[in-house]
Amino acid sequence: MSATPEQLWQRFQQHYTEFPTLGLALDLSRMNFPADFLPAMQPRLAKAFAAMAELERGAIANPDEKRMVGHYWLRNSALAPTPAITKEIEDTLTAVEKFAAEVHDGSVVRGAGGPFKRLLVVGIGGSALGPQSKSGGTKETRNGLLEAKAAYARAGLRFESHAAAVTGVGSELDKYAEQHGWLRRFPMWDWVGGRTSELSAVGLLPAALQGLAIREMLAGAKACDEATRVPDFAKNPAAQLALMWFYAGGGRGTKDLVVLPYKDRLELFSKYLQQLIMESLGKELDLDGKVVNQGLTVYGNKGSTDQHAYVQQLREGVLNFFVTFIEVLADRAGDSIEVEPKTTSGDFLTGFFLGTRAALHEKGRESVTLTVKEVSPFTIGLLIALFERAVGLYASLVNINAYHQPGVEAGKKAAGAVLVLQTKLVAHLSANPGKSFTVAELAAAIGAKGQEETLFKVGTHLAANVGRGVQKTGGTSPAEAKFAAS
Amino acid sequence: MSATPEQLWQRFQQHYTEFPTLGLALDLSRMNFPADFLPAMQPRLAKAFAAMAELERGAIANPDEKRMVGHYWLRNSALAPTPAITKEIEDTLTAVEKFAAEVHDGSVVRGAGGPFKRLLVVGIGGSALGPQSKSGGTKETRNGLLEAKAAYARAGLRFESHAAAVTGVGSELDKYAEQHGWLRRFPMWDWVGGRTSELSAVGLLPAALQGLAIREMLAGAKACDEATRVPDFAKNPAAQLALMWFYAGGGRGTKDLVVLPYKDRLELFSKYLQQLIMESLGKELDLDGKVVNQGLTVYGNKGSTDQHAYVQQLREGVLNFFVTFIEVLADRAGDSIEVEPKTTSGDFLTGFFLGTRAALHEKGRESVTLTVKEVSPFTIGLLIALFERAVGLYASLVNINAYHQPGVEAGKKAAGAVLVLQTKLVAHLSANPGKSFTVAELAAAIGAKGQEETLFKVGTHLAANVGRGVQKTGGTSPAEAKFAAS
Repeated sequence: MSATPEQLWQRFQQHYTEFPTLGLALDLSRMNFPADFLPAMQPRLAKAFAAMAELERGAIANPDEKRMVGHYWLRNSALAPTPAITKEIEDTLTAVEKFAAEVHDGSVVRGAGGPFKRLLVVGIGGSALGPQSKSGGTKETRNGLLEAKAAYARAGLRFESHAAAVTGVGSELDKYAEQHGWLRRFPMWDWVGGRTSELSAVGLLPAALQGLAIREMLAGAKACDEATRVPDFAKNPAAQLALMWFYAGGGRGTKDLVVLPYKDRLELFSKYLQQLIMESLGKELDLDGKVVNQGLTVYGNKGSTDQHAYVQQLREGVLNFFVTFIEVLADRAGDSIEVEPKTTSGDFLTGFFLGTRAALHEKGRESVTLTVKEVSPFTIGLLIALFERAVGLYASLVNINAYHQPGVEAGKKAAGAVLVLQTKLVAHLSANPGKSFTVAELAAAIGAKGQEETLFKVGTHLAANVGRGVQKTGGTSPAEAKFAAS
Repeated sequence: MSATPEQLWQRFQQHYTEFPTLGLALDLSRMNFPADFLPAMQPRLAKAFAAMAELERGAIANPDEKRMVGHYWLRNSALAPTPAITKEIEDTLTAVEKFAAEVHDGSVVRGAGGPFKRLLVVGIGGSALGPQSKSGGTKETRNGLLEAKAAYARAGLRFESHAAAVTGVGSELDKYAEQHGWLRRFPMWDWVGGRTSELSAVGLLPAALQGLAIREMLAGAKACDEATRVPDFAKNPAAQLALMWFYAGGGRGTKDLVVLPYKDRLELFSKYLQQLIMESLGKELDLDGKVVNQGLTVYGNKGSTDQHAYVQQLREGVLNFFVTFIEVLADRAGDSIEVEPKTTSGDFLTGFFLGTRAALHEKGRESVTLTVKEVSPFTIGLLIALFERAVGLYASLVNINAYHQPGVEAGKKAAGAVLVLQTKLVAHLSANPGKSFTVAELAAAIGAKGQEETLFKVGTHLAANVGRGVQKTGGTSPAEAKFAAS
């Protein structure tokens, strides 16, 4: 079943590609696709390249929301479909850099206690690398804002003089920030989705404030975009990734993608990929409206430490996954000690990566290896662009829309209904002091028949928190429990 | 397909159980098992209860390593099979508490710069809550120790006066710590596995140093152990979890367990469960030696923020999972602001949890809900014990050994071989200054035929790091690349 060392060496030479302009290499040799897989996929891949080219020219690729998909323009503003958009991208970039410089300088832009030292990001979704709030209407972000503002007030500080907004022009948050005299406002555009917003102000502002070279990030992304526009599997690392995902899961997402980056600083990268990939590819309907329940499950921890959590299962257990190793060639800067003669911790890390890969391969567990020269702003920009493109191509291969998220709204709506019910529940109890009600009685009284369980859950939560005005008595059975004003 | 509200309310009442002594509730109503599932599982479950009772009495449950499995004794030392073990458990607990008190007091046990303020844990595996190093022979931990020691030396500090060891008595690390006069040594025992070591000194020492009430953690675990010894599905939350895992994945792990704790402070709990469950259940062979490739894949992020990463896919995408929600009734201590009239952020969190669950249920996505009163040391101890027991019972249900990890060694051995090869490679290049070699030539020269790819990878890594004595020239093809001493 296992290949001989000679066969493996041949396969490695055949399926290992270096992309010197990117400082990137991709190794598909541990994916056991048969010889006829790549030729068979060519027609589909050609279609995917064409769809992507159209998208980049400004086609409406998010028909649900009637939006263009323009994250590719962020790193090459000359590609934007109108001069106005090009200008907005450039102006925002300049504004972000200027603001970061002013914050770092600290002579004009500063907090009540002097120059700023810490950054607090209030947002949700988007990604681990830079959460976003497009409308300011999202409840979690609104709550976060109010909580932060209250914390500043408790500290005797004026929140507004310490805050900047990244939001759509004219949005609720934008107006609020303008009215209250926030430090700055930076625009978000409807042609940038949350999960592809890393290289808009959403991601660039926190990056610049942390001192990262954001022009380098953009350069890495731009270089990768150029490389991954080439409609040739052999020369295009994003196409290679997309076809491997297709091969692994039969184009149906039947196997999980386990991300194992071998670098502490890439610890959060798996979480970022999880959002990018699962939100983009997890779709009920295909582009023809057919129910397909697509998706690609992603999870991962950094190696070599955290991989111990599941290497046992990966090697021996249920074969429901394939791995993407991320190898970083450059060890940490500066001298390293020798933990054994002429051997550093970095050498051990390489050894653990190769050892783990070999141990998995022996048992028929497949993996892709992605090698980068170093962790740098250029490389981070590159990796973001690489996976964004791979997601876009894969979505075309399986005929779905990667740029909407119709399934997210249902939970938000249901949450809203729960809070409405809570308000009614509390009002009814307050209006009837001294009286206890079962949830059946409450449901009848407030016109919420069929909502007994939700009333039970909400009432139990309120009763568990002192000062919320609700007490719970009665048995441990939901039907017997009684709620009253406290 | 969906149940009516009335049916759901009935099902909730039937499958929702409160465990008042634990401050725990478990809701199985969103798992769509048929009425005959539970009765059909009774004989298997009875066997699992019996196997667990035998294990707790000190049976050799880890035959590969000839070890007893004794983590249950840690929280009730009276159950240990010998008075000597009981005494060791109690003495260690007292020693941990005493040391933590001395560190906190700071008058005697202190660092070079005064009382200790920070805790650095050097370890691997074990768990996110408290990594461990049993033998001191694990390379990653050894490397971590050497790196930490070097960092102390660079700062002009004596590492040994700042260090404590948790390790097996008589192990390499134990001897080393004794010889070098470390502050303290605490024992680990071969009857405690890494992933079940949270309530040994491995987990308790860091917890105590951080000021957690470790006796409360132990009390929570003890209370849960007692509740989950009851051989009755209706009264035993661990048995309920184990049967749900069996139902969801058909006893074959065909569905991933997605953990969604709704509490920031439980963010790492998913990672802990990932290790506990996947390392315990991911096994090639069953107890009869039959190839079964068992396992249960676990991943998760905290709600409601991070769930946005994949709620889209969970609701609409590939149906390869079931969810375990963890609900915490108590909101944060102290007053909460009202983000809407009479509504707190905590209310919103409850709303998002219920809303998400409803949105998933609507689409036939199943979930278990585990409710705890609060996040406290008692509850953490309880949750650890609950999942440890569920894992043990599930392992019996599917006839595997939950207490070994035979698949972990292969990767370590392969890593060792890589480092041996690196040493030979470097020696050969140094011995032949000014000469370049392809990997084929190197393999022939150092007797490593069949290891060409590993030589290429190791050489490329060394060449990417200045000062490591290796340079790489030649094309971008692995066969053409040449390596030389630099």
